Amino acid sequence: MRNIKVTLEYDGTHYLGWQRQPQGMTIQQAMEEALEKILGVRTRVTGASRTDAGVHARGQSANFQVESDLTPERLRGALNALLPRDIVVVESREVPPEFDSRFSALSKLYHYTIWNRSVRPAMFRQFMWHFRWELDLERMRAATPALLGRHDFAAFESANAQSETTVRTITRAEWMGNGSQLIFAIEADAFLYNMVRAIVGTLTDVGRGKIAPEAMPGIIAGANRANAGRTAPPQGLCLMEVRYDLPELPSATATEEQ
Amino acid sequence: MRNIKVTLEYDGTHYLGWQRQPQGMTIQQAMEEALEKILGVRTRVTGASRTDAGVHARGQSANFQVESDLTPERLRGALNALLPRDIVVVESREVPPEFDSRFSALSKLYHYTIWNRSVRPAMFRQFMWHFRWELDLERMRAATPALLGRHDFAAFESANAQSETTVRTITRAEWMGNGSQLIFAIEADAFLYNMVRAIVGTLTDVGRGKIAPEAMPGIIAGANRANAGRTAPPQGLCLMEVRYDLPELPSATATEEQ
Repeated sequence: MRNIKVTLEYDGTHYLGWQRQPQGMTIQQAMEEALEKILGVRTRVTGASRTDAGVHARGQSANFQVESDLTPERLRGALNALLPRDIVVVESREVPPEFDSRFSALSKLYHYTIWNRSVRPAMFRQFMWHFRWELDLERMRAATPALLGRHDFAAFESANAQSETTVRTITRAEWMGNGSQLIFAIEADAFLYNMVRAIVGTLTDVGRGKIAPEAMPGIIAGANRANAGRTAPPQGLCLMEVRYDLPELPSATATEEQ
Repeated sequence: MRNIKVTLEYDGTHYLGWQRQPQGMTIQQAMEEALEKILGVRTRVTGASRTDAGVHARGQSANFQVESDLTPERLRGALNALLPRDIVVVESREVPPEFDSRFSALSKLYHYTIWNRSVRPAMFRQFMWHFRWELDLERMRAATPALLGRHDFAAFESANAQSETTVRTITRAEWMGNGSQLIFAIEADAFLYNMVRAIVGTLTDVGRGKIAPEAMPGIIAGANRANAGRTAPPQGLCLMEVRYDLPELPSATATEEQ
């Protein structure tokens, strides 16, 4: 058995998220169905992140076990020929047997995109949160550094989650602005359920003047979801990268077909 | 009668371009149908550019005559409430009676986006041309300045066009690169039919090594479509702005609803 890791890009608009479920199509199911057609056997695919319905990815990671002699590059080509147009395998490689996309991850980087203009967007509207009220980016920037470091982030975990611990370490949190488009970049060792969306919702409350930037440390320390802001909608969220302790791939592997 | 100018943004994926036609829905028809519902009379909408099927716009301009007392801002709100989600009026203003979106235009700015990676894109794939073979951006940049200035651009006009003259003046032409994403910005007083797409197709032939950068002046001077390259597909093209000699709008008008 060989352990194959793939990097996936997807437009999550028409999927019920990563994880298989009876209500409709998911990214995991699309991957597993394509793999079964190629390999002739049911193959379980493990994803690094259980992205929600409507959430996108430029760099989701997943892995699976194969008996096949197909090279990772041929597997990628075969998958891309079978996968729907809104899912693609960007990279494929063999990894050590003990590698697990979810548990081997060192950190994950998400981007959350806000379109801050009174008029609704027409282009790219599936990839951002249209926030029609004016946001004060400087206030939001002032509130952001309180998130950095190791904290109990229970204030930003959705009610139904069942995490063993709500302590996480955020290593990067910053706002990038470009006219009407604001992008929040956040990286952590792991995230609680809906954590990025709850943080973004809270920071927009800061940007609108409903919450003072100075209140952020107290909101975190209180560990009470009710003190934080709303949960931002899914379509603004994109999983950009999952980092591992693996050697760099030679770039040649990325210059083939499909 | 008042003359109203609107600035439109649209995702052209599901439209047969700007101009009304029997085969299916167009941006012009969507605008005219929404206006008829609001005003109660058929209203002809003139567009600055007849964008093709699948072409997008961040800044198309259009104008129409109204008898109504609705302010331009109220008209914008009413239009945005009725227009489909992939079309939006970004700005609306009253202009002098002699203003015509098409004939008053001083220049138009287009962007053409190429996704230059071997693997097909999943996100934003409706907004770019996937070009799987490696492009040499320096070669493309070397070939670009020959386009600047006043020339007969017949070499880049599609066969069925019926322009009175094929002389145009290009005031800006440059490549902006960002990893796999290449954006070509081009501004001219006006464009021939399919001109931007023919220029982009030709420059990708330069980028692949099929045409020498030094051949560009000769291709232009030859005024023969057969000497230039292929026509790039529509979905990479976006009309960014149409410039006029009109006073700046106070920015307050852009901060209302919808």
